Order: sequence, then C-alpha cells, then structure tokens
Amino acid sequence: MKFLVINGVNLNLTGKREKGVYGTATLADINAKISAFCAQNGDSAEFYQSNIEGELVNKLHEAFLNKTCDGILLNAGAFTHYSYALRDAIASIDIPVAEVHISNVHARDEFRHKSVISQVCKGVVCGFGSASYIAAIVGLKETLTK
Amino acid sequence: MKFLVINGVNLNLTGKREKGVYGTATLADINAKISAFCAQNGDSAEFYQSNIEGELVNKLHEAFLNKTCDGILLNAGAFTHYSYALRDAIASIDIPVAEVHISNVHARDEFRHKSVISQVCKGVVCGFGSASYIAAIVGLKETLTK
Amino acid sequence: MKFLVINGVNLNLTGKREKGVYGTATLADINAKISAFCAQNGDSAEFYQSNIEGELVNKLHEAFLNKTCDGILLNAGAFTHYSYALRDAIASIDIPVAEVHISNVHARDEFRHKSVISQVCKGVVCGFGSASYIAAIVGLKETLTK
Amino acid sequence: MKFLVINGVNLNLTGKREKGVYGTATLADINAKISAFCAQNGDSAEFYQSNIEGELVNKLHEAFLNKTCDGILLNAGAFTHYSYALRDAIASIDIPVAEVHISNVHARDEFRHKSVISQVCKGVVCGFGSASYIAAIVGLKETLTK
Amino acid sequence: MKFLVINGVNLNLTGKREKGVYGTATLADINAKISAFCAQNGDSAEFYQSNIEGELVNKLHEAFLNKTCDGILLNAGAFTHYSYALRDAIASIDIPVAEVHISNVHARDEFRHKSVISQVCKGVVCGFGSASYIAAIVGLKETLTK
Amino acid sequence: MKFLVINGVNLNLTGKREKGVYGTATLADINAKISAFCAQNGDSAEFYQSNIEGELVNKLHEAFLNKTCDGILLNAGAFTHYSYALRDAIASIDIPVAEVHISNVHARDEFRHKSVISQVCKGVVCGFGSASYIAAIVGLKETLTK
Amino acid sequence: MKFLVINGVNLNLTGKREKGVYGTATLADINAKISAFCAQNGDSAEFYQSNIEGELVNKLHEAFLNKTCDGILLNAGAFTHYSYALRDAIASIDIPVAEVHISNVHARDEFRHKSVISQVCKGVVCGFGSASYIAAIVGLKETLTK
Amino acid sequence: MKFLVINGVNLNLTGKREKGVYGTATLADINAKISAFCAQNGDSAEFYQSNIEGELVNKLHEAFLNKTCDGILLNAGAFTHYSYALRDAIASIDIPVAEVHISNVHARDEFRHKSVISQVCKGVVCGFGSASYIAAIVGLKETLTK
Amino acid sequence: MKFLVINGVNLNLTGKREKGVYGTATLADINAKISAFCAQNGDSAEFYQSNIEGELVNKLHEAFLNKTCDGILLNAGAFTHYSYALRDAIASIDIPVAEVHISNVHARDEFRHKSVISQVCKGVVCGFGSASYIAAIVGLKETLTK
Amino acid sequence: MKFLVINGVNLNLTGKREKGVYGTATLADINAKISAFCAQNGDSAEFYQSNIEGELVNKLHEAFLNKTCDGILLNAGAFTHYSYALRDAIASIDIPVAEVHISNVHARDEFRHKSVISQVCKGVVCGFGSASYIAAIVGLKETLTK
Amino acid sequence: MKFLVINGVNLNLTGKREKGVYGTATLADINAKISAFCAQNGDSAEFYQSNIEGELVNKLHEAFLNKTCDGILLNAGAFTHYSYALRDAIASIDIPVAEVHISNVHARDEFRHKSVISQVCKGVVCGFGSASYIAAIVGLKETLTK
Amino acid sequence: MKFLVINGVNLNLTGKREKGVYGTATLADINAKISAFCAQNGDSAEFYQSNIEGELVNKLHEAFLNKTCDGILLNAGAFTHYSYALRDAIASIDIPVAEVHISNVHARDEFRHKSVISQVCKGVVCGFGSASYIAAIVGLKETLTK
Repeated sequence: MKFLVINGVNLNLTGKREKGVYGTATLADINAKISAFCAQNGDSAEFYQSNIEGELVNKLHEAFLNKTCDGILLNAGAFTHYSYALRDAIASIDIPVAEVHISNVHARDEFRHKSVISQVCKGVVCGFGSASYIAAIVGLKETLTK
Repeated sequence: MKFLVINGVNLNLTGKREKGVYGTATLADINAKISAFCAQNGDSAEFYQSNIEGELVNKLHEAFLNKTCDGILLNAGAFTHYSYALRDAIASIDIPVAEVHISNVHARDEFRHKSVISQVCKGVVCGFGSASYIAAIVGLKETLTK
Repeated sequence: MKFLVINGVNLNLTGKREKGVYGTATLADINAKISAFCAQNGDSAEFYQSNIEGELVNKLHEAFLNKTCDGILLNAGAFTHYSYALRDAIASIDIPVAEVHISNVHARDEFRHKSVISQVCKGVVCGFGSASYIAAIVGLKETLTK
Repeated sequence: MKFLVINGVNLNLTGKREKGVYGTATLADINAKISAFCAQNGDSAEFYQSNIEGELVNKLHEAFLNKTCDGILLNAGAFTHYSYALRDAIASIDIPVAEVHISNVHARDEFRHKSVISQVCKGVVCGFGSASYIAAIVGLKETLTK
Repeated sequence: MKFLVINGVNLNLTGKREKGVYGTATLADINAKISAFCAQNGDSAEFYQSNIEGELVNKLHEAFLNKTCDGILLNAGAFTHYSYALRDAIASIDIPVAEVHISNVHARDEFRHKSVISQVCKGVVCGFGSASYIAAIVGLKETLTK
Repeated sequence: MKFLVINGVNLNLTGKREKGVYGTATLADINAKISAFCAQNGDSAEFYQSNIEGELVNKLHEAFLNKTCDGILLNAGAFTHYSYALRDAIASIDIPVAEVHISNVHARDEFRHKSVISQVCKGVVCGFGSASYIAAIVGLKETLTK
Repeated sequence: MKFLVINGVNLNLTGKREKGVYGTATLADINAKISAFCAQNGDSAEFYQSNIEGELVNKLHEAFLNKTCDGILLNAGAFTHYSYALRDAIASIDIPVAEVHISNVHARDEFRHKSVISQVCKGVVCGFGSASYIAAIVGLKETLTK
Repeated sequence: MKFLVINGVNLNLTGKREKGVYGTATLADINAKISAFCAQNGDSAEFYQSNIEGELVNKLHEAFLNKTCDGILLNAGAFTHYSYALRDAIASIDIPVAEVHISNVHARDEFRHKSVISQVCKGVVCGFGSASYIAAIVGLKETLTK
Repeated sequence: MKFLVINGVNLNLTGKREKGVYGTATLADINAKISAFCAQNGDSAEFYQSNIEGELVNKLHEAFLNKTCDGILLNAGAFTHYSYALRDAIASIDIPVAEVHISNVHARDEFRHKSVISQVCKGVVCGFGSASYIAAIVGLKETLTK
Repeated sequence: MKFLVINGVNLNLTGKREKGVYGTATLADINAKISAFCAQNGDSAEFYQSNIEGELVNKLHEAFLNKTCDGILLNAGAFTHYSYALRDAIASIDIPVAEVHISNVHARDEFRHKSVISQVCKGVVCGFGSASYIAAIVGLKETLTK
Repeated sequence: MKFLVINGVNLNLTGKREKGVYGTATLADINAKISAFCAQNGDSAEFYQSNIEGELVNKLHEAFLNKTCDGILLNAGAFTHYSYALRDAIASIDIPVAEVHISNVHARDEFRHKSVISQVCKGVVCGFGSASYIAAIVGLKETLTK
Repeated sequence: MKFLVINGVNLNLTGKREKGVYGTATLADINAKISAFCAQNGDSAEFYQSNIEGELVNKLHEAFLNKTCDGILLNAGAFTHYSYALRDAIASIDIPVAEVHISNVHARDEFRHKSVISQVCKGVVCGFGSASYIAAIVGLKETLTK
C-alpha cells in the first residue's frame, strides 16, 4: 500500500519550537520513522508539507485525480480548527483520510478542541506523539484491507 | 506489557445492534483480535465490560491500587459525553489511558462530538472500527517505551 | 400484547415525596391501575424499577435479547435529562419505547425541558398524572397493531 | 364529556403532503376516528381547523366565553414553535388543553424541539400518528374526572 | 390631537382573564378612561383591537396612508415578542408609535423581556396598569408638540 | 411556463415606505416589469399579496392542490425570519419556490440575516432591487427546464 | 404626594453632552419642569443626583428608613445595565420606583437593551425626552391612588 | 444530633490521588476528625461512600424513610455537576442536606463551577479542605436548632 | 459590459466531485455557458479560479486597480464561511460583487448557512445550479444600468 | 487570631428588609454573635460595612498594607456578581478571604448563581443564615492553623 | 501639550501586589517616568488615582468642563470590563482618551478579554509594562497634532 | 535594534481604499515614517507585505530561524480574526511580536473585536492611525531593553 503523509502549517518547525509540547524529533525524523514502519509491512510513504492552505488543497486534489496513493494521513496543524476549504477538499476525494495530531489537542487551548475536518475523515488519532502517525497507519491499513 | 481493555455502556451489544454503525463483530470477536495482536508482540490483554458507570470507576481504581497493568484502553460508550465521574477517576490514577471509539464520533450526533474524558487521557483514537483498539495499543505502547 | 413498564430513579418514592407535584398514588397503586387497564384489553404488563442507570440499561437489553415484550413504557425520572447511556440502549433495541412522565415537565425547572431520549423513542406522553401511562399504552398499542 | 379538537396551520393538508412523515390518513379520516372513539365512551367531539393564527386564538376565546366544551385538543402545527399569542390564549382560559402532534417532533428538525405552548398546557402527546389524538383524550378525560 | 389606540392579541379578554396580572377593568373600561383623559385636553382617541397580526399591520398602514391620526398607542400583546411584521409596519410609517404594556413585562416570563418593536417605536411605557396608556399619551403629546 | 409571484407582509407599501432601502418603484410597477419579462419568453405571471400569514399559506396550498403554476417566487417580507408556518407550507407542496428579497438582507439588521424558509426553497436571490425577481425567474426557469 | 427624583451617573452633564441624543435641556431645566408639573397637581418633588453608585443606594435606603416620599423616579444612567446593588436596594424598600430614561434605550447600543433593575421596579418609561419623567409621575400617581 | 456523612464518586481515593488538590488525609482520617468534632458536642456521625450514583440515591431514600439522622453532609464528587438524579433525591426528602467540597471548586475547571444540587440543598461549603465538613456541621447544626 | 467570474477553493473539481450536490457540468462547461449568455447580450466574461485565498484577494485588487471589469461574480467556495480577508477585499473595491453558489447552501451543513461576505456584496444568488451564475449576471447587469 | 468581617452593599439593612429571605436579626445582632463566638476561642473580630464598592476595596488594601488581621470574611452582597474590582483587590492581598452569604444564593435568582470573587477566595459558605459567618470562621481558622 | 493620567481601581497597589504580573515599579515610579518623558517633549502630565468608580467619572467630567488637558490616558483597572458608567463618561467628553493596560489583558483571565470602554476611546495600548503609558502618549500626541 | 514590520492581507491597498477608515497615507508612506523614526534612535526597520497567510507564516519562521531581527510588528489585517495558523507561528518563535492596527478595531464591526493572536503577542496597539506602528516600536523597544 502507498500512503501520502501531509503535514500542514507550522509543522516544518516540529522539533525546533515549543519542545515541551511537540518533543525534539524533527519532521524529518518523524518521516524517517514512518517510512521504516511502512517498509516493515511492505508499504511505502510519500511526504508533503506546506504552510499555504491552498497548496494542501491542491495536493489532496492531485492525489485524487492521479490516484497516487491508497490512504492519506493529514496533520493540518492549526488549519484543523477553521479550514472549511480543507474539509471540502477531503470530502471531494474518494481516498480515505486519517486526521493526525502529535499532541492531545483536547488537553490544550479551547479552540483546539474543535476540528472542522474530523467529520469528513475516516478516523482520528491524537496525543501519542510521533506514534500518532504510526497508529493512524495501523488503523487506516486495516480499514483498507477489509 | 499488560493492557486492560475496558468497555462501557451498551458495548456488550456490539455486533448485535446498529450493525450499520458498529459492524457485525461481537465484543468477544474484537477482544480475541486484540489478544492475538498483543500475543504477537509478547504483550497481554485483560478485558472488562460493564453498563454501570460506578463499576467502571471501581475497575480503574483497582488497576491503580493493585498496579494490574501498564496501560488502559477505555471505550466508555455514551458515558464519554457526560461522565465527569469517569474523568476524575482517570485523572486520579497514574496509568496512561487511551480513549477509543469504534465509529467516528465526529461524523455522528452533535452530542457525540464532545468528550468529557479526552482532556485527561493520554491520547484518542476513533473511526477505524475494531482496528481503533489495535491503533490505540500501538500508540500507547510506543509512548510507554519511551 | 405484553408491555414492560420501566420506572427509573426516585420513582420508587412516588406518592411519598413532593405530593403536590406527583400526587399521593404510590408506584404500586399506579402499576395496579396499569395492570387493570391492560387486562380489560386482553393485554398484560410487567414492571421494573431501579435507581441505578446501568440496571435500567440491562433491563432494556434483556427485553431485546430475550424478546420479552411487544412495547416498553419508560419513565426514566431525572435520567431523562442526561443519560445518553439510556438513549443508546433505546436506539440499540427494536422494541418501540414510549417516554412517559407523570408531571408536565415543560411547566417545571428549565433543565426538565430537555430530554435526551425523546429522539429515539416512538412517542412521548407527559402531564396527565398516572393517566400518562394509560395514554402511552393506547398510543403504543395502536401503533403496534398497524 | 365534550371535546374541542383544534388543528392549526397546514394540517388541512394532512394525508396529502409529506406522507412519509404524516401518513395517508386525511384530517377528515382522523376526525372520524376521534368521533368514533368518543362515541364509544358516551363523549362527543367538535372540530375546527384554520391556517390563520388569530382565528385559532378566537376559537379558544369562544370556547372559554361560551363554555362550549370540557377539554381541548390542540395540534397547532408550526405555530407550536413561535406563537406566544396562542400561548397567552391558552393561559387565559380555564379549560384544560392537551398539546398533540402526529409525528415525534423530537426526532425531526431542531426548531421543532421547542414548544412555546407546552408550559401552559395540561399535558403533551406526540409521535403515535393519529393515535396521538386518542391518547390525549384518554389522558385528558381521566384528569377531568378526578 | 388625534390618537389611535391599537390593542393586539388576547387584549379583548382584558378584565376577564388572569385578573391577578391584568386587573378587572375591561378593554371598554380602559378605552373610556383614555377618551375621558383626551377630552380633558381637547384631544380625541379612536380604538381598534384584533387578534390577527396582519389586520394590525393593515390598521397601521391605513393610518399612514390616510393620515388618520397624530400619534399611535400600540399594545401588541404577545406579538410584541416575535412579530417582525409589526416592526416593519411601524418602521414604514411616519406617525410616532408608543409601545404600551399594562403589566411590567420585565417582571414576568423571560420571553416577555424581549420586544422586537421597541427599537422602531418612539418610546415605551409599561407596568402602570391602565395608567400606562395615559402616561404614553402624556409622553407622546409632549414629543409631538415640540 | 406560469409563475406565481407572492408578496408578503408590508410589501404592498413598496415604493411608498423607506425609499432609501426599497426604492420608489411600487409593487404594481415591479409586477408590470415581471409580466413584461415573462411575456418576452412566452411565459406568464400571476400576482398575489397579503399581510396575513395564513392567507399566504392558503395561497401556496391552492397552487399545490389546483396545480395553478410551474414555479413560485415568494418575497415573504418580515415573515421570512420567523414563519415556520410558511416554511411547512413550502415543504408541503411539490412546486419549486424561489425566495426573493429586494434589498440585501445580509447588509441590514441582524435579525434579517436568518431566514427560516431558505432551507426548503429551491434557491434564494437578494439585493438586486426589483431585478431580484427577474433573476429568480431566470434561475427557476432553467432549473425547471432541465 | 411627594416624589423623589433620583438621577444617576453622567446625568449631571445632561444638556452639555451628546446633545443629539439627550437634547439641550440641562438637568436643572428638567427638574424645574417636573416641579412645575407637580405643583399643578398639588404634589411636590425633591431631587438628587450622584455619580457614585453607593450614594444612590444610600439615598434609596434613606427614603425607606425615613419615609421621605410616596414614590421614586430613578434614571440610573449606565448603572441601569449592571448595578445589581441598585436592584437589591430597590427590592429592599417598600416605596414604588419608576425606571425612567430620556432616550429610547432600545434604539441604541445592544448593552442598553438590558436593564437589571426593571424587574423590581413598578414600571418603566423611556424615549419621550424630558417628558419621560412627567409620564412616569402620571403612571406612578395613578397607581399610588388606587 | 445525628449526622449522616455521604461521600460520592472517587472520594474513596482521597489522600491517595491528586494530593496537591485534596491533601494527604485519607477518607478514614477525615471521618475520624468529623466523629471527634461531633463527640465534643454530644452529636454523632454515620459514614457512607459509594462510586455508584444509584446507591447514593438509595442511601438518601433510606435516611428519609427510616428517619436515621437529623442532617446530611453530601460531598457528591463529580456527580455534583450532572446528577439530576441526586438532585431529585435531595428534593424528595425532608432532611436538610449540606453540600460539601474539600477543594474550592470555583478555582478549578470550568465544569466544576456549576452544581446541579446546590439549589435543593440547605447550604454549601467549599474550599477549606477537610475543615469544610466541620464548617458544614456548624452551619447545619445551628440551622436545625433554630 | 465586462464581467469577471471568480471561482474559489475546490471549484476546479466541479463536475468531478460530489456530483449529487454539484451536478456533472465541469467548471469549463459552466464558464462556456456564461460566455454564451454574455455574448447574447453583447457582454463579455473573463474567468479566474484559485484554491489559494490570497490569490483571490490579489485578483480582486487587480480588477480594482486596473479597472478591468464592470461587475464581479464571486463563488468563494468554503472561503465564504470564514474568509474575512476576502470580505475586506470586496469592501475595498468599488466594483459591485455578486455572491454566487451552485447549491442551496441553506439546505446543507449548518456552517454553510453563514456567509462572512454577503454583507459587503451587492446581492446573493444560490441554489439554481449553474443557472445561479446567469441569474447573478441578470441581477448585476440591471443594477449597473440603473 | 484576628478576623475582619466586611459586609457590602445593602447589608446594613439586614433584619429590616426582605425578612423572608434574610431573617430578622440585624447586622448588629449578627456581629454580636460573631464576636461572642470568637471570644469563646480566644479570637477577636473587627467589623466594617459600606455600600460603596471602592470603600470596600480600600478596606481590603488597608488590611493588607497594615497587616490588621489573620483572615477576612467578606459578604459582598450584590457586588459578588459583578465587581471584578473586588476580585482583583482580593487577589492582590495575601490574607485569606472567605466568601459568605446569609441565604443560599443558588436557590434564588439566576444572576446570583455566578460569583466573580469565588475563584480568588479561600473558600465559600452560603445558606446557613447568620451561622454562615460562624461556619466560615471555623473553616478559615483550621486552614490558618495548618 | 498637557496629559491627564488617570489610574483606576487597585492600581494604587502597583508594585506591591502580584509582582509577577505587574512588576515592582510602584505607581509613583511609573508616574515619574511619564513626567520625565513628557518633559523631554515639552509636554506635561497630571496624575489622578481612585478606587471609586464615580470619582473617576467626576474627574473625566471636570477635565471636560474645565478644559484642563489635551489628552487623557486611562487605565481603569478592573472597571475596564464592566463600567458602562465610565464608558458613557468618556463618550460624553470631547477630549481623546487612550485606554492603557500594563499587562497583556488578552493573555490573562477570560473576563479581561472584553473591554466595555475600548469602543469610545481613541486607541488602546496593552502589554508593554509601564512603557504602555509612554506608547499611548506617543500615539495620542501624533493624533492630536494632525 | 532591528525591527521587522509585517503587514498582512489588503494592507497593500492602504491609502487607496476606505480612506475614511484608514486615511490617505499609503503603505510606502507609513513605512517611510517608521524608517525615519527608527533612524532617529539608531534602529532600523525591514518591511514585508503579503496577502497570502502562509507566506506571512513563512516570514515569521524565517526571522526565527535566521535571527534577522530583535522585534516584530505585525498588522495581520483581517487574518487577525481567524488565523490560528499565524497564532501558532507567533507562539513558535522567540522574538517578541507587537500586534498593530491602524484603526480602532473595537469601534468597528463585531467580528473585529476578537483577535486570535493577541494572546501570544507581547502587546497590542490600535487606533492611532499610522502612529500605532510608532507607539508599538516605543513599547517593544523599552521591553526589549529591560
């Protein structure tokens, strides 16, 4: 299986900012870990990051139009809480999307308790640090093979 | 590692009720699957279910006082949405708890969008059917081994 | 036809508490009246009361799994206003449930105006004193015979 | 006993509109059924329908001033949700009024969950189709004979 | 000066309903009192009452189109709280309107605390019983003579 | 095609009231313009106006029962914001209804931002002055011919 | 009869500030007008103004303890919208209080639409300029003589 | 005098959990302190704890039906914030109940600021640690001896 | 006249996504239809689409600074519901903008009922499928020629 | 130990106003009772009352700057519900403050359910009449001696 | 230019209370710094502080009536969040007022996020410690010299 | 010291749009003024503007990663009110950011009263026209030199 891992706004700074919240692993570290996990199961992962909302939308469209993967992991960062544009993009495509968060968003600021994309995602994982991505692959994989 | 898997109210009917939402696997089927996954990794799982809120609280207390496990998976069913008693019980104990839901609660009734226990759990997984439990073990396990 | 009449929390005190609101007939008196009404029509009624939310859930499950009745009358007492556990139990079973209240809940405290179970019940009757139960049987009976 | 059955806005189309919600029995069919039920008990029923809010108010006033009946059944249709004018009219008269709905309003649109007249009615019945009217008579009758 | 005194829904029952709230003076009694007060000052008053919202709108239009009076007293009854139709009618005409209430609406039900017409009226008087009408004339009169 | 153009409360004063908001064209002027536009396309229009909510309901019923037109344009005036009675009437009939407003209701008072009828209409047009009616016919016409 | 006219915060600037809203008559002008009106009826008025909330409370207490007047007119200025202290003071005394406003508070800022003192006053008058005080005396006087 | 001291959900862990919030005294320690205080005044105390909401209701009923005490101290734990069942049980009995909290609930999570039982209790004490129970006895005792 | 037709986020997928909601006509098809309609009237249309909010802002600025058109049609897609940036851009320019939606946004998700741009647009059209664009041109054109 | 007992707005009328709510004991009576209780334990109490919010702030500052007492009892009267000034004063000083109310504020008007000062007080006592002050001293005393 | 610097409730304790929030500079220190800054530019400053809301109102009136300064800096302390009395006083006078806060009120308690006076001030500065006053003078000065 | 001045969406049109609100100085004019002010104090300023949210995020990241300045002035335009992406970017970096607005946002539309970035900024200045930038530099400068 092929997975597309999309990280949104500010996630390029992971490991360099607010380390108490997000840990010290950089996005490259996390991606390497995901690739290793995929390889173990004969799967593969492609990675994309952007701070521009519309470029994330474009990436989702591209995956859909070109059928580039079987499942998508999306950590939209702060866009999670207001980007109805991303929501509509997810609803527009027929590839299942798992919503992922490194931290437990429910134990942080009030505004992070509401996600405008959960409703159109297949499932949601949060709070397990970089393991949230691995857990999401496990969940998505089993769902896809059913 | 030892995991305690607690299922709350109405989950004893899983596989027998609202099959469109919860699938046809019974709770026994799901538990067997979790046990098998644990065994693969040299871990083990214990299972508990009750429809009585206070008995779930008692079970959490017991795990804490008797140190019966390394991590807990809790699918509290509808108690998720109003049981501050469970919330306080989770906050009272020093064993990490993963909140689990079979369905994507965010794609269902409005009242299911709010969980009063997420804030005191380690992480949350929902929407991947019975694979939500497996994903939660993956997340919890990695967190515990850090 | 067979009816199961379930009374929830504090209803065991009916006739002994807040008589201005609930009258002086005890629960036994009301049940006798219901039995008499059922007998007139060749129907029968079974009665259950508990102050423990989970036991009410268990009773609903039991009726569903063992097919013990044709219709259920449920006066959940204060659980009406917050027990999503009972709501899910009602939604889980294929026996029609009528929500019943002795007093007119809409003419009392603000919190009594909201029922979290109405949406999954067949119908609702309130305000006619012990006659609310009789009216609910009339409504349920006709619906079941259609 | 004499009952006045008042049907409000759009109920003249019952049996001709949204049949999935309201069934195929016309208002005339329902009224005939109510009359038959009343006759069985030596009671009688008079019927009134209008789509004009103020005419329903006038009818309630007339019943009060001329003492034309012992109890009133009022299905106000959509007026239920905003007509404080009807509410005040009900509160102004000393004849008990039962609020009736064919469908289970709590299982439909959000705006139908709130009734501005329940508080001043004797009781409420909803969800049992045309049997809601019969159940309301049963409830009202017993209340009146106490 | 000529005043038009418009009373809305249920006010025809004044003196006959909820006497604790509205007193025992009938609408005819109140109107006589207003006429007497006007006569003392060389003014006159015309009276209108309807329970139909649209007829009250028509009366306001008529006063505007035919210039039948210098000022209007409007006790809209329960329409006060939701009739945006009346609000727009008042805003459409160039005759000043005084909103009048017999009882102190702020000391009654929550829903009576909000008036949708106050914003487009010249002024408001409430709580002085039938004297509210007299006080409104005093206020309106002085405003008109400025 | 035949269109029924229904104007609700206070719209009879169009051109005579609040000219800054609604312009100086009278309702007769607007209707003439609509007729002219219809004639150009071989269509025809019938017109109705009332300030009484229930009469507008009756008109919608009549169109439905007697199949008097292919599409309806409804400018409900202030009823737009609270008449669930009109909403249910529109939902009851199988003729598509276009909601029309002369002014841009979203640029006016807060209470005008909410329409209780939009949900059951085919489409909505507002803000283009009397051209809103013409635009609505264009929209409705194309929809009907598909 | 003796009236006590209490003006609250910022009202000492009447006639000198925001003249578009409050007019050019000073507080002294208004008081002279009130005295003249009272004299015509054989009544008298005493005046008090303070910008300090607690001093207004003290004045109300004093009137109550020393029985210095038959009725009170209170224009509390901005305190109207949040001073529960004034509210409790009014509720503590057995002299009827009329709430008065020069402008139509309902046609101004949102926060001015809510009065925390109306509920415990006898009645309310607003919007008639300085005539609001006269109207309030008319209303209070008739109430007191009943 | 005899006092019944009821502790609700999670309070059995007092002294073992969240010691920063609740201190290190166990429930047994606190109860011993209460007994000692009562003994000083010739009073006595009985103790009960349960994590099951319905069992707390049963205990309240039992005290009422068997007249086992003069006053009740109830620390309902998290049930305080949603158990309308406990609220109705308290309202059902004629023994005064004092609501007690060890911590200052108003200085903690938002959800702890709202108690659904305060309204039907005699009084409330919170924030003084285990001394809250003693203070409540002092308050209740004086009230009972009046 | 020259019209600029701007389509926002996800609208490039029109005809390829959620066909039940948006139909099967692609954006190219719709644009062709608009061009044809314009040509009939001697008008012309220019088209622009972007998934990036800031690029839509730039396009609006450009039209304003370079005076490239007489009127603008803007279907902002999901940006409609939260882009105050677009709102301010529209308010900044002196070319009238018509807000357009293919579907009836009021009959879909709650979040789609609120538009943050309507207030600063000339008018709004929704629900008529691709004909919404044509209707908007009709409305805008007449407004511009006045 | 030395206690400072501060009573706020309208409490000078205690025993003279709303006797059904506050009883007939005057503030002097209550203070005498508090002094007597303190004397029994070798403690003393000083008393202060003002209807002016800022003077209460000054008194709290003075106690802090001059270290005049060990603990403070504050019954702020209606200021409890809106005086953020008092809240900040309490938070500014390092002497523990107990919030006291004679009546059970939770069983009275809705606005009395919210206290803006509880969060910064040590604890709260309400509902036990004048015994609330005694209970607060018991609570505060034990806390101070720990 | 002459500036009047008004500090409100609890600001007399600046430097002595909650030093983590407000720093250790006393109000005298801050005022000295402001005077020095003014002197550098040939301006002067006058200072006033009170804990009594009405006295702050009086000071604003006095500045207006006696034209004692060119601009006002107002740090109203907690009054910022509820004193509509101060708001009206600011709106009443024709001297520009700058709202100042030492701390960043938006990073503190929820209730501090809302200011009822901002709307009628010229501008707002917060969060720069005592430099907030200097920044406000810079802003106000430039505005006044335009 | 080096300052980075970032202007967000629509601010490129400053001086060309809504001149009543923003004045006639262009962004270039304002920047020149800021540079001049900085030069006076031996400081320097760099300027950046973009209408694309993600580019503003990138600019903030770059300043942080490359340590290009000592302090940042951010006028985010309409992004202020919903861009949690900008908020997280500000919180991610260790350079203090001052939020700046030309107009007094609290005296404009309701939606402009809420800033989602204030909480993570050092301070806020608004309402002094282009002088707001200068005032922010004054505030930031003093804070940085402490």
